[in-house]
This record gives sequence, C-alpha cells and structure tokens, in this order.
Amino acid sequence: MVNNIEVSNHNFCQWLVHIKLRKIVLLVIIILVGVTFLTYMNLWYVEKDSGITHGAHSHLDLPDESIAFNNYGSHVKDLYRIKGSVSAELRDMEFKRQKLQLEIQSYTKNIDQLKAEMVHQQTELNRLKISVEQAQVAQREALQQNTPELALPHRLVPNNLPEINLPVPALKSTHCRMFSCFDHSRCSLTSGFPVYLYDPDQYPVMNEGWDVDGFLKTTLKQVLGYNPHLTGNPKEACVFLVLVGEALKDTDDVSENVGNHLNLPPLDSKALKRLPFWGGDGRNHVLLNLPRRDLSASAGDVFTSIDTGRAILVQSTFSHMLFRPGFDLIVSPVLGPPGGDVWQECSRMLPARRNYLLSFQGEMKVQPTMSLEKIRDAETSEKSIKYSDLDKFIVGHLKDMTKGTTSDKFYFEFECVPASDDNFHAGPQDWSLCGTDSSRRAFLKESTFTLIFGPGTSDLVSTTLLQARIYEALRSGAIPVILGGDQVRLAYDEVIQWRRVCIFLPRARVTELHFLLRTIPDTDILLMRRQGRLIWERYLGSVQSSLDTVVAVLRDRLNIPPLPADTVAATSVFNETFQPIQVIVGLDTEQDESLGPLEPPYDSPAFRRNYSLMLTQGHEIWNDWGDPFRLYPALPMDPLLSSDAKFDGSGRGFRPIGQGQGGAGKEFSESLGGNNPREQFTVVLLTYEREQVLLDSIARLRGLPYLNSVVVIWNSPKPPSAELRWPEIGAPLHIVKAARNSLNNRFLPLDNLQTEAILSVDDDAHLRHDEILFGFRVWREHRDRIVGFPGRYHAWDINTQNSWLYNSNYSCELSMVLTGAAFLHRHYFHLYWKWLPQAVRDKVDEYMNCEDIAMNFLVSHVTRQPPVKVTSRWTFRCPGCPQSLSEDDTHFQERHKCINFFSKVFGYMPLMNTQYRADSILFKTRIPHDKQKCFRFI
Amino acid sequence: MVNNIEVSNHNFCQWLVHIKLRKIVLLVIIILVGVTFLTYMNLWYVEKDSGITHGAHSHLDLPDESIAFNNYGSHVKDLYRIKGSVSAELRDMEFKRQKLQLEIQSYTKNIDQLKAEMVHQQTELNRLKISVEQAQVAQREALQQNTPELALPHRLVPNNLPEINLPVPALKSTHCRMFSCFDHSRCSLTSGFPVYLYDPDQYPVMNEGWDVDGFLKTTLKQVLGYNPHLTGNPKEACVFLVLVGEALKDTDDVSENVGNHLNLPPLDSKALKRLPFWGGDGRNHVLLNLPRRDLSASAGDVFTSIDTGRAILVQSTFSHMLFRPGFDLIVSPVLGPPGGDVWQECSRMLPARRNYLLSFQGEMKVQPTMSLEKIRDAETSEKSIKYSDLDKFIVGHLKDMTKGTTSDKFYFEFECVPASDDNFHAGPQDWSLCGTDSSRRAFLKESTFTLIFGPGTSDLVSTTLLQARIYEALRSGAIPVILGGDQVRLAYDEVIQWRRVCIFLPRARVTELHFLLRTIPDTDILLMRRQGRLIWERYLGSVQSSLDTVVAVLRDRLNIPPLPADTVAATSVFNETFQPIQVIVGLDTEQDESLGPLEPPYDSPAFRRNYSLMLTQGHEIWNDWGDPFRLYPALPMDPLLSSDAKFDGSGRGFRPIGQGQGGAGKEFSESLGGNNPREQFTVVLLTYEREQVLLDSIARLRGLPYLNSVVVIWNSPKPPSAELRWPEIGAPLHIVKAARNSLNNRFLPLDNLQTEAILSVDDDAHLRHDEILFGFRVWREHRDRIVGFPGRYHAWDINTQNSWLYNSNYSCELSMVLTGAAFLHRHYFHLYWKWLPQAVRDKVDEYMNCEDIAMNFLVSHVTRQPPVKVTSRWTFRCPGCPQSLSEDDTHFQERHKCINFFSKVFGYMPLMNTQYRADSILFKTRIPHDKQKCFRFI
Repeated sequence: MVNNIEVSNHNFCQWLVHIKLRKIVLLVIIILVGVTFLTYMNLWYVEKDSGITHGAHSHLDLPDESIAFNNYGSHVKDLYRIKGSVSAELRDMEFKRQKLQLEIQSYTKNIDQLKAEMVHQQTELNRLKISVEQAQVAQREALQQNTPELALPHRLVPNNLPEINLPVPALKSTHCRMFSCFDHSRCSLTSGFPVYLYDPDQYPVMNEGWDVDGFLKTTLKQVLGYNPHLTGNPKEACVFLVLVGEALKDTDDVSENVGNHLNLPPLDSKALKRLPFWGGDGRNHVLLNLPRRDLSASAGDVFTSIDTGRAILVQSTFSHMLFRPGFDLIVSPVLGPPGGDVWQECSRMLPARRNYLLSFQGEMKVQPTMSLEKIRDAETSEKSIKYSDLDKFIVGHLKDMTKGTTSDKFYFEFECVPASDDNFHAGPQDWSLCGTDSSRRAFLKESTFTLIFGPGTSDLVSTTLLQARIYEALRSGAIPVILGGDQVRLAYDEVIQWRRVCIFLPRARVTELHFLLRTIPDTDILLMRRQGRLIWERYLGSVQSSLDTVVAVLRDRLNIPPLPADTVAATSVFNETFQPIQVIVGLDTEQDESLGPLEPPYDSPAFRRNYSLMLTQGHEIWNDWGDPFRLYPALPMDPLLSSDAKFDGSGRGFRPIGQGQGGAGKEFSESLGGNNPREQFTVVLLTYEREQVLLDSIARLRGLPYLNSVVVIWNSPKPPSAELRWPEIGAPLHIVKAARNSLNNRFLPLDNLQTEAILSVDDDAHLRHDEILFGFRVWREHRDRIVGFPGRYHAWDINTQNSWLYNSNYSCELSMVLTGAAFLHRHYFHLYWKWLPQAVRDKVDEYMNCEDIAMNFLVSHVTRQPPVKVTSRWTFRCPGCPQSLSEDDTHFQERHKCINFFSKVFGYMPLMNTQYRADSILFKTRIPHDKQKCFRFI
Repeated sequence: MVNNIEVSNHNFCQWLVHIKLRKIVLLVIIILVGVTFLTYMNLWYVEKDSGITHGAHSHLDLPDESIAFNNYGSHVKDLYRIKGSVSAELRDMEFKRQKLQLEIQSYTKNIDQLKAEMVHQQTELNRLKISVEQAQVAQREALQQNTPELALPHRLVPNNLPEINLPVPALKSTHCRMFSCFDHSRCSLTSGFPVYLYDPDQYPVMNEGWDVDGFLKTTLKQVLGYNPHLTGNPKEACVFLVLVGEALKDTDDVSENVGNHLNLPPLDSKALKRLPFWGGDGRNHVLLNLPRRDLSASAGDVFTSIDTGRAILVQSTFSHMLFRPGFDLIVSPVLGPPGGDVWQECSRMLPARRNYLLSFQGEMKVQPTMSLEKIRDAETSEKSIKYSDLDKFIVGHLKDMTKGTTSDKFYFEFECVPASDDNFHAGPQDWSLCGTDSSRRAFLKESTFTLIFGPGTSDLVSTTLLQARIYEALRSGAIPVILGGDQVRLAYDEVIQWRRVCIFLPRARVTELHFLLRTIPDTDILLMRRQGRLIWERYLGSVQSSLDTVVAVLRDRLNIPPLPADTVAATSVFNETFQPIQVIVGLDTEQDESLGPLEPPYDSPAFRRNYSLMLTQGHEIWNDWGDPFRLYPALPMDPLLSSDAKFDGSGRGFRPIGQGQGGAGKEFSESLGGNNPREQFTVVLLTYEREQVLLDSIARLRGLPYLNSVVVIWNSPKPPSAELRWPEIGAPLHIVKAARNSLNNRFLPLDNLQTEAILSVDDDAHLRHDEILFGFRVWREHRDRIVGFPGRYHAWDINTQNSWLYNSNYSCELSMVLTGAAFLHRHYFHLYWKWLPQAVRDKVDEYMNCEDIAMNFLVSHVTRQPPVKVTSRWTFRCPGCPQSLSEDDTHFQERHKCINFFSKVFGYMPLMNTQYRADSILFKTRIPHDKQKCFRFI
C-alpha cells in the first residue's frame, strides 16, 4: 500500500519531470486562469441573477421575465434580505468614511491656516518689535540731540542806507581788496545777498554824448528781474549794481562834433558820486561794463583815470595796473541772447578730432594800409619790439607747421577780410576778428583746437577781444589754445577752472605746440570740449547767465549761500472740505516677510550744509555740476561719514546692522546699515484715469517699511470720483492735482517730497516689497544714480550708422533704467525742470512719451555713470521685453526719435553702459540650514 | 432531459446563490492557493530531484542515498541530456546577452564622448572664429592707425650753460612773471625737468656772520638726492636751486660784535651774482629760504632790499609789494622730520566734534612789559589804529563768546607763557606762539576748530608764524579758522585748494563766527580734517615732502609731466640658460563655454595722457589723490569716452556688443563692450612651496580669454625644481623671483605687468573661467575699486566698544573683498609700495598676514567707496566662512589686530559698506527658449 502510493507518486513525478518546465508553468497558468475564469463566470451569473432579483424586488408587480424565479420563493427572499442588509451596511460604512475624510480635510485646512496665521503673526510681531526698537532708538536720539536741527536760516538784513564816508584817496583805491574796501556789515551770512539795481534810465552815469547800449539796458533789467537776489529796497541791499556800459557814442552827436566827445571818457566820475547810495566812497557798489558790440581792446576799459572809489569794477578789459585781484571781476562779453535755451548755438561734440587740428583767423592792423612788417617796424618801446620779434617768429613758425610732413591739417589766415561790424577792431597789437559771426562759426566747428593770441602787450591782463574769441571758440567746441596764456586771466577765474577748458601756453613754447596738441588723446579732447560747453552754457551763453554768474561770484566771495531752489506747491486734488473715504485693506500675503521697521514718517534732514557746502565742494559745484545759483536741501553727492564716525561721536541716525556686528537674515532686515544714516523714501505715482489700477497699486504699499508717504500725481483734468475708497496704508497719501496732463509732471519738484529717495512708479507697476527694499538699499549706495528694475539699451543703428535705436530686447548690456519702477534722488527733479533745456520737455509733451529717457540722459550726463539695474524676481512683467500693449510700434518709433533728439540737445550721447545687475549678497548661495539669507526670495 | 439538466443547473446556481459572496471568494482563494501550492510543491520536488541528479552526475561513484534513483535508468539519462542541453543553451544565451550589453555600453560611451567632443569642438570653433574676427579688427585698426602710439617721450634737454645777460633793472624785477622772466628754452616739455642744486657749502651766498642752518643744509642735500629730477649736470638743468636760508646768525659772531652784523641783511647780493650759472640776471634760479627755527614774522623775509634779478623767491613771509603771484612761491616752514612716515605725528580724526569748539592761544607783544592796551596805543598809522581797534573788538567778542549760553566750549588764552624757543616771537602786530610744541599739540588735538589771526598789517600776504600755526593745526586735526583770511595766501595755493582745508573769514565777520562754526555738520568737519591731513602729509609734513612739493609746483607751472613711477624689475627665477619643461594640458571640460576670443597678448596702452592729465585732472591729482610727484602709465580714474565716440571717430580699440546693437548670449560673449576699449588682464599668483597646487592652478587658466600673461611670484628662497612640468596655457608665463618671502610681494609693481587689470589670486584658488570673465567685465566698470569674490566685513566690537573685529561670517553687508581672488588696478600696486606708510608693510611682514586687508584700506581710502563683490557660483569654497584650515584662531586674532592697527595709521576707518553683489544681468531670469543668457551658469 505504501509502496503503491510511492510508485504512483513516482509515476506522477516521472510524468512531471518528463514534461518541460515551461509546459508545467503553462499548465498551471491554464489551470489557474481556467479556475479563475470559471469562478468568475459563476460569480458573474450569481451577480447577474441577484441583480435582476434585486431590481425586481423594487417593483410590486413583477415583470413577465421574472416569472421563472417565483418558483424559488422563500429562498430568494432570504437572499434578498441578506443582500439588502449587507448593502445597507456597506453604504453606512461608505457614508461614514466620506464624512470622516471630509472632517480630516477640514481639520488639515484649518491647521494650515492657523500655521500660516501664526507665521504671519510672528512676522508681524517681529516687524512691530523692530519698529518699537527703532522708535526707541529714535526717541533716545531725540532726547540726546544737542545740536539743533538746521533749517533755512532766518534772513538777517540791514535796515539802513550806507552812511556817507569820506572818499578814499585814489591811490588807496588801487589797493582795494574785499577785506579793506568792502563793507561786510551790509551782508550778513543769513542775509540772502540782496542786490539792488540802479535803474540805468533813472540814474545815468555817462558823460554827454555816450550812452549805454539800449538792448543791454532793457535786457539787464529784464533778466535781473528773474534773479531772486534782486531787491527793490536799497536799505536791505548788500551790493548796488550800476550799469555803466557797454558805452556807445550817441550816433547823432558823433556826426556833429566828434572831436569834443571823443576826448571825454564815457564814464562821468561826478555822476557816480551823485548816485543816492554811493555813500561817499562807493562801498559795495558794482560797476558793470558789459561789452557786447564793441569788442576792441582799447575801447574796453572805461575806468582808466576815473575815480571809482571803493566800487568793484566788472568788465572784460583790464590792465595789470588797474586790475585788483579778488576784488574786480573779469567777465566775458555778453554776446548771447537775453536768456532761454542756448544749446542750438553749440556745435556737436563729435568727432573728437575735427577736420583741422588747429585754426587761426585774424589780422593785425593799426592802419589798414600797413603791412605786417611795417606794423612791427612802427613799434618802438623795448618790450614791444621784443614781442614783435617773437610774434614774427611765431607767425613764421605757424606757417611752417602747415608745410609739415604730418597728416594734420591746419587752417591759418593771417590776413583777412575784416569783421563786418566796424567795432570788431583790435588794439595796436591785437589780432582783429575776421569775417562774420557765421563765417567764424563755420571754421571753428571744423577745428579741434583754435589758436588765440594773448594781448600784444604784457601790461594787459585781459582784453574784450580775447574773451570774445574764447566765447566763440567754446560755443563751437574748438578748444582754445592761448599763446601767451600765462599772462592772461579769464572770466570768473576765482571760481572757474579754465585749465580744464583752455590750453595756456607761453609764447616761447610755440615750437612745441604741434607736438603738444598731437599728444592729447581723444578722451581729453572730448573732456575739454565738454567742459568748455558746460562753462559756456552755464556762465557765458546768454545775458541772463552772465548776470547770474556775476551775482553768484560776488555772493560766493562772501560765503553767503545761494537762495533755496524753488519747489512746486502741491495742491490737493480734493477741495479742502472734502474728506476722501478711506478703507482698511488686508496685508498682501505675498509680502509676508519682515523687511524692516514700520515707523512714523521721518523726513530727510535738509539744508544742513548751507555754510559748508561751498567750502568743501565749491569747486565741483562750479566746475562739475555747474549749478552754483541755487541752494538745494540735499545733494546726491553729499559726502559720507567714515564708518567709525557712527560709533564715535557722530552716530546719530545711524542704524548699523547688528549694532555694528553685521549679520544676515534677521539682523539685516532689522536695520538699514550702509554708509548713510536712516532715512525713508517717498513713492511718486503718476496716474491717468485708471482709478482701480491705481487703488490696487496703492493698497499693495500697505505695510511697506521705510515708506515716508505716497504722492499721486493726478494727471487727469477730471478729479477722482468722490466714491473712490482709498486704501489706508499706514503712510500719508497725497493726491496732487497736475496743472495739465503731462508726463513731465512725474518729476515735479513738489514741496511735499520730504525725502531724498524717491521711488518713481507707474500706476500699474507691481513690485514686491522685498524688491522695493532691496532697491532702496542699493540706491543708498548710489544716491546719484537711477537705481531700478526695468533695464533698457541705446543701440547703435548699424544700418544707417548715424543714429540710435531704443532697444528693449534681452540684453546683457544696459544703459537705461526706466523710471516706471526706479529710485532716484529728489535733486534730479529740480534739475529736470531747471537744468534741462525746455526743448526736451516740449518733446516729451509732443509725443506723450520719453520722459524716462530724458531723465536717464540727465542723470548720466551729470554723473557720467550708467544706471544700476536691480534684481527683479518674476513679478515685474517680462523684464527686457516690450512692456505692454501700449508699447506698440508708434511708441517705439517715438522713443527712437527721442533718443536721437536728446543726444542732439546734449551735443553728445551721455548714456553709459553697464553689464551687471545688483542682487542681494546671499542670493542663490548655498548656506548652512541654521543661517538665514538676506531676503527670502531675492 | 432538458428539464433535468436545467434543474441540476438551477440547483448548482441555487447553491451558489445560497452561500455568501465572501464565502465564494474564500472558496476560490482556497482553490487557487491550494492549486498553486500543490503545483508549487510538485515543482519543488521535481526541481529537488533533478538538482540532486544533476549534482550526482558530476560524481563518478554515486552516493548511497542515490541508489533509489538507479531504478529509473534510461529515463533519467534522457532527462539529464535534455537538461544539459537546455542549460548550455541558456548559458550561451546569457553569454551573448552580456556581450551585447557590453557592446552597447561601449557604443553609448563612444557616442557620448563624440558628442562632448563635438560640443567642445564647436565651442572651440566659435572661440576661434571670434578670435579670428577680433584679430581681423585689430589688424584693420593697426593699418588705419594714424596717430602714433605714445610712449614715454624721449628726453630733450639743453646742452649749454645759461648765457650771460645784462642784469635787469630792479624795478623791472618786481614785475617778473613766468612769461617775462623765466627762460623756457631750458625746459623743453620732454626734458623731464632737471633740477640743479648749488651745494650750499661750496657756494655760500650769505653775508659774513650769517649761515644756513646746518640741519637744513644736510637734510636738503640728502632729501633732494631722492628726488628723481635732481641732476649734477648744470648744462642740462632747467632750474637752479640756491639754499639761502633759514639764515641764522653765527652764534660766535653774535656774542662778539652784534651791532655790526645785525645791520647787514643775511643775504649777500654780490655772492648771488657770483654764482657760476647766474647768467647775469639769475634766470631760472630758485632762491630757497626755508624757515625752521625762526618763525618770527619780521625775520622771515630775507630778500627785501636785495637785488635778486629774475630769480624765483621761495619763502614763508611775503609782503604784497614783494610777492609776485604765479612767480614767487609761498611755502610752509619745514618743521617736520627729514623724511619717512609722518602718520605718528597726526592725531586721530574722530570724534568729529572735540572737546573745544574753538581754541586760541597766543600773546601779542612788542616788548614783554607792555600790556595789550599799550601796544595798541603805541601804534600810529591810520590803518594800524583801525586794525587795533578791530582787534580789540575781536578779542572782546571772543571773550564774550566763552560766556555764552550754548553748551559749546572754548579754549582761549590771550596772554601766556611765551614759546620756549626764543625765536618763536612775533612781529609788531602778530600773536606769538605760546608754550612748547607738545603743549600746543595737547590743546590742538582737543579742538575742533582753532583760530588763527591773519597778519596784523594788511601789507603782508603771508608770515612764517601764520604758516607755522596752520602747519601745527593740520597736524593735530584742528581745522584752522583764519580771521582776516581774505588777505592772506597760503602755501602752494596755485595748486592746493585751501578752501577745503581752512575757513577764511574776514575780520568783520567775527560776530558770525560762532554761528558759522555751529552750522558746519560732522560730515564737513571730517571732510575738512581729512583733507587737511592729506595736504599736511603729502606737502608739508617732512623736509622731503616740502622740497618735493616745491619742485613739483615749479614743474607743474611749466606743464612738464612728472617722471614715470618706478617699477620693480622682474627677475626670472630661472637662470638665463635654463629652459623649463613645458607640457600641453587638456582643456578643462568644466570651462566648456565660449567666453571670448583667444588673442595674442595685447598690452594696455600706457602713458597716453602725459601732457593732458595735469590739464584736465590736475586739480584732483593735487587735492584728492595727493600724488603729483609721479607719472603713472594709466590711472584708475582716467576719463571715459562718451558712448557715441566709439562710432564717430574714436572707435579704435572698442568692441561694442553686436557692433553696437547689443545682445545676449553669443553677441555678448564675442565682445567686451562696456565703456572702455578692449584690454586684457594679467594673473598674478603668489606661491610658496606648493608646487603641484600651483601647477594645477596654472593649468586651469589654459584657454582663458583676455588673459595677457601669468606672473607667478615665487616667494620661496628655494628655486623650483628643474623637473617641474609647467603647463603650456597659451599665454606667457613669468616665474618671478621674490627678494624675500613676504606677502607684500603680492602687490609688487613689476615691470612685466603690461595691463591695467590685474587678477590677483592665491595659488590654490579655484575660479571658473566664466566667473573670472564676469569679474573682469564688472571691474571694467569700476576700475578704481577692488572687484572680486571673497567678501569680508569689519565689524564693530560691541563688547569693548572701541575696536574692530575682522568678520568672515555670512553677512549681507560687506566692506572688503580679499585679494586672494580679485581684480584690481595696477596703479594700486604702486600706491601700496609708495603711498602706504612703511609701518603697514612691516605689520604684514610681522604677522605674515593682512596684506589683503591693507590693500582694502588703501583702495577705500583713495576712492571712499566699498569694494564690489561679484557672484560666485559654488566653486569658491564656502564663500563667507573660514577660508581654510590655515585660518585658525591665531590667524583671526592677527587680522583683528591688523584692522585696528591700520585704522590707527590711517587716522580713521576708511572701509565702507556695501549691501549688494554683482550678478550677470540675466542670471536666474526666465527667458524664452530661443534666447540666450549672458553666461550659461552664472
């Protein structure tokens, strides 16, 4: 039995071994599939049947097809019952499950919300903590504050007319200096330098037969009317201006009795003394002799042999004997228009090297019939002969130069058609001008350098002709080379550094002239040309600039600060009684990072350097920034304290990071750090009839640290609807009415801009708080530049090869940052309206476009620096590509035109290139987990 | 039958329906599991059996246990056979499979390699293409080049002694100016301004009984020996220096016959005329009267009533009558040490406001017994009386000030113990110095401002006493307030802008003095103090600086450029015959991005502005950079061309991006763009006995665009082993022997540094090529700053509250960029060795540390700017954390000490803060797929 089983077992095994493994597997699969299939089939039948019965169960009258089942009566009913209970049980369970799931979901959601809220609250708490700390520091500082906050000083002016002194002996007056002849008691530091002008018609000071040029008389009165220092009250005046020239012979008289009047000097010494405030010795009187038509050297000096007492003399021609350095003033002749834009007068600055390396045009003549040689022979004195020999040698050498082997071209004319205006004649040893103003302009704008001879005799320190030649050279961008330049003084040389404008060369060095000019590289040529244009435009170009300069130089001598720059009164768009509706808005969750303290508005200190600015930076103000006429509340170029000063005596206002220990994350966000004391910024929003967009933009500013206030320029003539619900953002909100719809209003120097930092934004710009604050920090390091988000480029049009294209493509080199989202210094708002020629603002209004380009030109021109592009995460729409639908083709075409027009106005292309972007220091840096970055996302 | 079947069917179904579904499932599972189990069991038996038989098959003698199987004889054998063949088949297949897999792997690998190679080749091709293009542009430029490349000019000096002229009449000489009395023919622009010194022992010019101070005589000869302008050959000399003072009475003679010698003036007019090169009228002679011990006003002027012909007079006391502006030279008395470091003499600059707002110490005495009142009564002339009245008022007003209600403190002494040195006496109307040098120093360093009275009589333009007071005030950082300052001239005022250093106030404004001083904010106080110290250190502090300044002012007047700054000869570490082994290294695949053209070495143009630099930037050179003594090949502050110049006449060398169209990716990498013409950089590697590390670092530079050359400073005394295999990197490699092992050698101004840009790297620094090139581009925008990778911070020690800590933690504010991986301008190498006080370099040698901190101090001091931190990907090891094991605690302690020591030497903390990092413009920016970024990874 056992064996049998073993055998059968063995047989079975044998059979199994016999077939291949795969067959076994196949078999098993078949069995399995078969069994499964069968089972399934049966199950399916059962299901089907029970399904049908279940369906039947719900109907009271059974259908025909179910008659067959009726036979199974009670059994089926049982099954039904069981099935039903099971189903119900299952349904219950499913229902419970779903309920539980929903509950779980809602719990999870709640927990998440709570967590977010907690983070949010924590951030808020941190923010508040920082704010409290900052407030405490500020309070402590306020208590410790010893020095009073400086503001514009109260004006302190005299209230009496000059007393009558005994006249000073004439000999004494030749030694006049400011300390010995000027009455400082009329000019307090806080007086604001009031200037009184004698009406030239009311108080004539000329001898019979002479009169002041009518144009000058009219223009002088007019342009001085624009000068804020002018006062009508002689009692408070510091200086008294007397117009004594340009003295012209009355043409009627000349024809009648020439002899008589020519013997008399133009100026009447007695008439001077009769001036009502002369005070016996002419203290604080300024005698203006402004040449305009008569540029002859001999006619320029009207003061010789006249007793001018202690008065300051202002003219273009001076002898060494008469000129009192630091007291008298050498001016350029007033050859320009009365005022207004003068850029059209100037030639463009490029190319650096023009057609002629050096040019000269002039004729030396005493009498028209004498030749050059004869003139020299006619001269007798030892010195004159010496100079003549030298001049002969010089002319000879210059002529040889043109025959040289170099490729340099020269334009020399030593004999010429005399200047059309008879008055353009020279003194006995001066080279007179040739041709007409426009003929001279034609060759000057073709000249890289132009030669100017110093006065023929060494006793002259300046002649009108010399100054006129310099005026014309600078206007056309020809760099003056003054041969004998070591003996002359140029206009306003106590403040203007002429060495950066002209080349002064001793006559003896004429042999080295060509060598010297060749060595000057293009950069320095352009630098000198640009500097010359700055000096010309600001100080010489128009009658107004000349007179403003005379006043400014005298004021500067006394170290009296200029008067403050005008601001524009900000008028609210609402009438006084209207109370706009304010609504509380929630904090944007996107901005959920503690970025700094929320403090009450803290205005940037202003007018702190009224009396020291001109000492430490006067040179730059006159020569680099070209704006000594106005006092500004603060400058982008204000100096910085050294980093130890904030820990040693000058810490007031500073918020060093981690109290000076530095740090990242928390410490960084708590304090502004940097090299400047704490400050805030003002958001300036320009808007035009997009009320909801504007309200959303304003609402997003809620909770923004360091926000001083928001100024909305309401460019639409239609006031905002009274129902508008203005968001309450925790900082003052000013809606300012614009006089008219102009994009120039974006940069209005409004009187309610209380901070140096201005964040200029479009009404639809969407900047994150962290971006804004990082931009603010970067701007604090580059206060003189535009620091912002959308970068653009001025591309050279390689097809035309003579114009620029506005470029907003992806580029790795930028030259503009648009003011639709950028920080810039309030100072540039003043410059935009005061410094920029009117033609630029007109172009902006013409196109309703390009104001941002104009601002970039302005800032780059002043700083010679590119703007700073700051990181933009991805909230700024498509950085680098066409900004919005409004930027259609017309818009672009206009911008191309603007760039080219502006560079024509500036005379060159001031934009500079930059190839990097400012990111936060630990951006995308791998740091240990326990460390924090500077910002969470940027 | 049919029914029957139906019934049985129904029965089965009924049964099925009867049991529950779950039971059915259970049943099926049991069946399935059962069947599977059974099958498996059978299979297992079969396997087991066949396994045993298979095992037995390998043995010839069958084991006892297998006897049972023998019964199955032939069947088993068949099975064995089949099994065997199947196994073999399987093995074959497995083998084939593996082979195929291997093949596939190797193919894939090959393909990958080929792909990489292709990319690499493509990059290489692009690189070459760019390089070829660049070469073509360079070639075209070379052909078009019109102006010759300027270099140091050939010296052109005269070769004759001055001819003998007739002496000029004395009256004439009072009108001497450079153009009328100076012989320019001896001073060609290219002459290098040779200066000849008459040996004061060999050519005495003093009257009997007088002699030049011995110390002066010795020191003068010594310090002029260091001046490169000094020549021993009078034939080539431009000017001739004659030391005429400080004239002291021979003490022996004084005791014997005082009367006699006092009547004689110190200077012997006839002796002057006997000077061998006097030439009859003393042309180009400079008479030096340098006061040192006798600071009295009356004794200062040795030239009155002496005929000095056409010689230039140099002294501290001048009357208005004698002084010829622009010709004579007012100097400060030479009160300092002969030469060397003078920083120890100076007081620290902080705090801005010191104990006393204003101080004064002096006594007015003619005869010691007379009271102040009597002195005034004793004066007779109208003007004197007037001044005395004014002075009385002034003293009274000053005394009242101390009684004022403000918290400001004053220190006034109007009667005092006279200065210990008898010679410190004043003229009839001058306030003499009091106490000793150290007692005066003590109150000056406690004074924010110090009062200095202008000369008592208005005919003096400068007195020695005045200059000495200014010298002492600047040394101690007290800002001089010169009352009557509008009538004086200070030393070298044709080049130094004293307005930035002193406050000049008319005597009449004494009533406004307190108000004025209070209005000056801390920033301007510190600015003026810093400026005063710069002027003092550079131009007044030592005998050497005084004499160098006199020479420089005269040279500057003639617009002759200074002599070029010294460089250090680079000596190869190999002897001349040795040829180091060079090996080709492969390109690092990590650097596989086309970043720019590979060009032959192109040196930065040098000495282009020799004759224009002083014109356009002379003011800055004298007053801001304080280095008019040397001519440098190029300056970090060289001006830029405007961006249109490169398309209009001055395009030479410029490589605008996309020919001016801008662009990203390819266009960007092809051209340098920016505001400067093309250039290259030099890598300077400091190494010390880490040969393999060095070689690896050098090898990584292969294929780096814009690389001019690599200079390795071999700091080890042991020369490199001859077997070293130096990598061939496509640029010249110089291994320079250092004189000794010093970290200062990192900044040696070697003569083989041919580019302005220097990339200073540690021998173990691992920078990627893209990082280097981006850094280079950023540096080109900030040529005056340190631009690099590892940022550090100077933290305030809030525990001690009086010192600084070196900080290398993660920080969002930086103030240093270490020179272990940074770009900086070659110019700073000169300044590091010439400008920096020796004490700083000594400290670096003492600690073998801190040279990078010293360089950061220097650059921040010169520029008043922080360094620029550039992106670092992740190759720079752990940016911001301790750099390596070498930076252990000692290393850190030393660095703390260095920071504090250096800020003591500088007198303040020059480092400035920065809060951003420079990244490439499109870094981490989402751009369309068809656009390229600036760099692939950074």
